[in-house]
Amino acid sequence: MSSTRDIDALIELMAKLPGLGPRSARRAVLHLIRKRALLLTPLSDLMQTVAVTARECLNCGNVGTADVCDICTSEKRANGELCVVEDVADLWAMERSGVFKGRYHVLGGTLSALDAIGPQELRIPRLVDRIDTESVTEVILALNATIDGQTTAHYIADQLEGRVRLTSLAQGVPIGGELDYLDDGTITAAMHARKSL
Amino acid sequence: MSSTRDIDALIELMAKLPGLGPRSARRAVLHLIRKRALLLTPLSDLMQTVAVTARECLNCGNVGTADVCDICTSEKRANGELCVVEDVADLWAMERSGVFKGRYHVLGGTLSALDAIGPQELRIPRLVDRIDTESVTEVILALNATIDGQTTAHYIADQLEGRVRLTSLAQGVPIGGELDYLDDGTITAAMHARKSL
Repeated sequence: MSSTRDIDALIELMAKLPGLGPRSARRAVLHLIRKRALLLTPLSDLMQTVAVTARECLNCGNVGTADVCDICTSEKRANGELCVVEDVADLWAMERSGVFKGRYHVLGGTLSALDAIGPQELRIPRLVDRIDTESVTEVILALNATIDGQTTAHYIADQLEGRVRLTSLAQGVPIGGELDYLDDGTITAAMHARKSL
Repeated sequence: MSSTRDIDALIELMAKLPGLGPRSARRAVLHLIRKRALLLTPLSDLMQTVAVTARECLNCGNVGTADVCDICTSEKRANGELCVVEDVADLWAMERSGVFKGRYHVLGGTLSALDAIGPQELRIPRLVDRIDTESVTEVILALNATIDGQTTAHYIADQLEGRVRLTSLAQGVPIGGELDYLDDGTITAAMHARKSL
């Protein structure tokens, strides 16, 4: 490589981002150097700001810039519904859909015996606390439809049984989905949960 | 979106990098926030450094941190061979292969009537100068095998004809390539340039 030390180091760090490999990191860095004023400097400044200000909401685990996030402080969203998600990215995906008007609880992962992740690592005790302190009436388990996600959902359901209404997202054919491209599990789930017209 | 202004702005900027879209930018930013000390802060610092130090080599157009790049200053590489490439990324790709021991000349693009890119925009006059001042004996045209790349190669060949030995990269089947997956043009070129065993 004829580029010098700093540029090589930047490429190496960029390649650690999810979705970027060595090749796309090189392209990204060349692009950044070409668009120095428009992209490189503002990006570096913003990263510096976010490195200082970003924090997890102490209540729900959402990422924001305050100790307690906008959703947890908004009185409008205290409608008694609490949506449990694995990850902040899932929370953001729910928010983009705009369908849910309650509050969230981010677990920060799933239970996993292999990786030694138990309830204490997952913000589950805090979830149990919130049921009482925020007078929650319904907990919606919006965990991923993976084995770990469903194991975690079962564990939480056990913990909360009898204390609150428990629901989970419907499973079935996604909007725009073609049967030919769906896996057997999805088709089976959609068939079992079929609705009368 | 429940994330606040700075985080949203960071996601928006990251999505402008080549190879990242809105979705992968969100994933990258969450990853950065999680790996604050290990990734976010060092990345931001390096970007700041590179924004100040990165520059184009005044001689060949390579990107580095000096006014004249390592390759242009190295006496070892003054072997009379000059490799003409479209872009810095192409120069880096050639350097990774390690096959070329001479110097480079980065055009910074290809001639394009549609985009009003003429020889003056492309560091072609500088190329013509270098033939004399650096006593170049062979110019290797390593331009992309696209229509614009080949048009540019023809133009440069016209300019330099009779003054220096002109060559171009061989065209044919790539190493590991399967005929069934190659386009007709490549197969035709490989057939025309066939070698006796």
